[in-house]
Amino acid sequence: MKTSTTTRGFLLALCTSLAASLTMAQAPQRIPTPNDTLKSPKVLDDKRAMIQIYAPKASEVMVGGDFIAGGKPLSLTKNDQGVWSVVTAPLKPDYYTYTLMVDGVRTMDPKNPTIKQGISSLENVMAVPGTETAFEDNKAVPHGEVREVWYQSNTLGMARRLHVYTPPGYEKGNTKYPIFYLLHGAGDDDSGWNTVGRAGFILDNLIAAGKAKPMVVVMPNGSMPMPPSTGMPDANMMNRMRSLFADEFLKEIMPTVEKTYRVLPNRENRALAGLSMGGFQTLDVSLTRPELFDYVGVFSSGFFGATIDEAETKYAKALNDPSFNKNKKLFWVSIGKDDFVMDANKKTLALLDKHQIKYQYQETSGGHTWVNWRQYLNQYVPMLFK
Amino acid sequence: MKTSTTTRGFLLALCTSLAASLTMAQAPQRIPTPNDTLKSPKVLDDKRAMIQIYAPKASEVMVGGDFIAGGKPLSLTKNDQGVWSVVTAPLKPDYYTYTLMVDGVRTMDPKNPTIKQGISSLENVMAVPGTETAFEDNKAVPHGEVREVWYQSNTLGMARRLHVYTPPGYEKGNTKYPIFYLLHGAGDDDSGWNTVGRAGFILDNLIAAGKAKPMVVVMPNGSMPMPPSTGMPDANMMNRMRSLFADEFLKEIMPTVEKTYRVLPNRENRALAGLSMGGFQTLDVSLTRPELFDYVGVFSSGFFGATIDEAETKYAKALNDPSFNKNKKLFWVSIGKDDFVMDANKKTLALLDKHQIKYQYQETSGGHTWVNWRQYLNQYVPMLFK
Repeated sequence: MKTSTTTRGFLLALCTSLAASLTMAQAPQRIPTPNDTLKSPKVLDDKRAMIQIYAPKASEVMVGGDFIAGGKPLSLTKNDQGVWSVVTAPLKPDYYTYTLMVDGVRTMDPKNPTIKQGISSLENVMAVPGTETAFEDNKAVPHGEVREVWYQSNTLGMARRLHVYTPPGYEKGNTKYPIFYLLHGAGDDDSGWNTVGRAGFILDNLIAAGKAKPMVVVMPNGSMPMPPSTGMPDANMMNRMRSLFADEFLKEIMPTVEKTYRVLPNRENRALAGLSMGGFQTLDVSLTRPELFDYVGVFSSGFFGATIDEAETKYAKALNDPSFNKNKKLFWVSIGKDDFVMDANKKTLALLDKHQIKYQYQETSGGHTWVNWRQYLNQYVPMLFK
Repeated sequence: MKTSTTTRGFLLALCTSLAASLTMAQAPQRIPTPNDTLKSPKVLDDKRAMIQIYAPKASEVMVGGDFIAGGKPLSLTKNDQGVWSVVTAPLKPDYYTYTLMVDGVRTMDPKNPTIKQGISSLENVMAVPGTETAFEDNKAVPHGEVREVWYQSNTLGMARRLHVYTPPGYEKGNTKYPIFYLLHGAGDDDSGWNTVGRAGFILDNLIAAGKAKPMVVVMPNGSMPMPPSTGMPDANMMNRMRSLFADEFLKEIMPTVEKTYRVLPNRENRALAGLSMGGFQTLDVSLTRPELFDYVGVFSSGFFGATIDEAETKYAKALNDPSFNKNKKLFWVSIGKDDFVMDANKKTLALLDKHQIKYQYQETSGGHTWVNWRQYLNQYVPMLFK
């Protein structure tokens, strides 16, 4: 185990009484620095957050994150001790992601081990506490479990992972539950909704308050393997990945999950929702196989990678089905006013309007952020299975 | 969501067909750099690993990790493109942890999202593939599930988390299983055995090969909350934390787990093991309550934070119990020859010898590393419940 200086000191301290001579021989000879006691992030009384990093040799330190209105990275300022810091504007209590750039090198805050895992990169997560976060906090209510589940995919020819939330009481009971498939966005994996998405805590709190039915939530890995060295995906690649996901979802994920867990495998008890790329996947799957899901949610998304003409052709059967509206208990669409995919969203809604597909639509403040997606999840789940 | 450049490009590409004008308006104006296509780590044909980072402004880049014999960090060398790199010695195929220091700033490899989570810091993980890793690889065998479980601890007055491995077939079956409590080391949390420790895959492979009995494995969080600003723990603090863990384990973790899961709650079907701090906790709990566990494993550990005299007094009842050996089916101790806690280990064994406590002892190559702990787990589990 390569350990941090702190841990190393801790381990050495562990041995002090018993093996003082060994400890002395191994104690690193070093001069204390401001880094030894530095804390980052620190939330101040007025809900501003201070982000700090000890980097005496650096010439420029920036921080980006979803806490910044407008998204433009902030510059940190160095003091004479070599500590760079910045204080944010007052923040609405919530969980925010951020990433430091030290002389252009993407750097996880060395003082903050709380992170969000992506398929190609990490981000730090910070909590700004307050009453506004009650819906997503880890509270003293009965908790469900979140399981990491590996399965062998014949479609993809590899082991794949998904996360499954089972509600409080599942382990000891015999009840069969409704099932909600919840999809993440591009760049993330099946852990995203459980870490920065706080899906487990949001479900726990809704169920404890009697606002949501107990349900099983399945969070698959929606990021399809890409051929090496393809660079940025073009429209053809996007379409191939969309089809690949639909196959994986319909032939592997749904059958695997529905034969394993105590769920009610029928349209009345199935919901599907996703954010960004996951919203596009949700549109694709639910317009291709509308008979599978009575509840559909599209967060901050639209038809990506396909023109509206292509979509109109591909989904013609569902779009022109006069019973589509009658059979859909919920088709819920939400997006932030500042979202950079607003144009795709608008064009998608226009296509639905053209075919008189009914949906509930909400525009919130904010952009393409987890701040919004947690709120949308908290709004969507209470509408399911009622 | 603050996204990486790659993800941002990916999201933009997603919109290309549908919203070309928007995409163009938002496309970042930037000059390509070597970072765009850099890969790190890269394992070469001869099993040397190349670690690289693009840091054109840095004046010194180092890497430390458990792949380095002797532990002394390696220096990276900068090329004229601003890319720093180092090639390791040929490595035995395994999973290794490493951490970069860029001008003294602890830096997660921006090209490697695979990490190990600690309570105060992160480390990167790299895989060097080969036949030697078969025991710990994610293979096409039936997989158990690993669950994240939150419980409310009255002892600590807070929500605590543990990980639970349930074997293949648990979800659909009615069998009751033996239960194995597996403890991590200082600086880690309850996720460690499941990430860098690869406990789930090791169990899956042993069970699939018929080498181990199917069992439930409970991986608690053994890091006790410390009062703020105490600095390095002294011997008194160590003793308080040891007692606190014993309370948490005996009053909260065991009752919670054994009333929730389908396990066999008796000494014949209970095992306990831990590494480093977890080995010390294992010694403490199993010598305080020897009637609870027939199987005990101590990996790379010994009595820390207490003198041998103190230990001899505290555990006098067990040490002087003539039936201790008869009732213990396995007392297994393993450590690497180069481990920096060897002295504590030796003094602990001397105390056991003095009281004629029987144990199996193994000295392996290597030091205080996860490389050894995964091997020890793979050796220990097949000896349980037989």
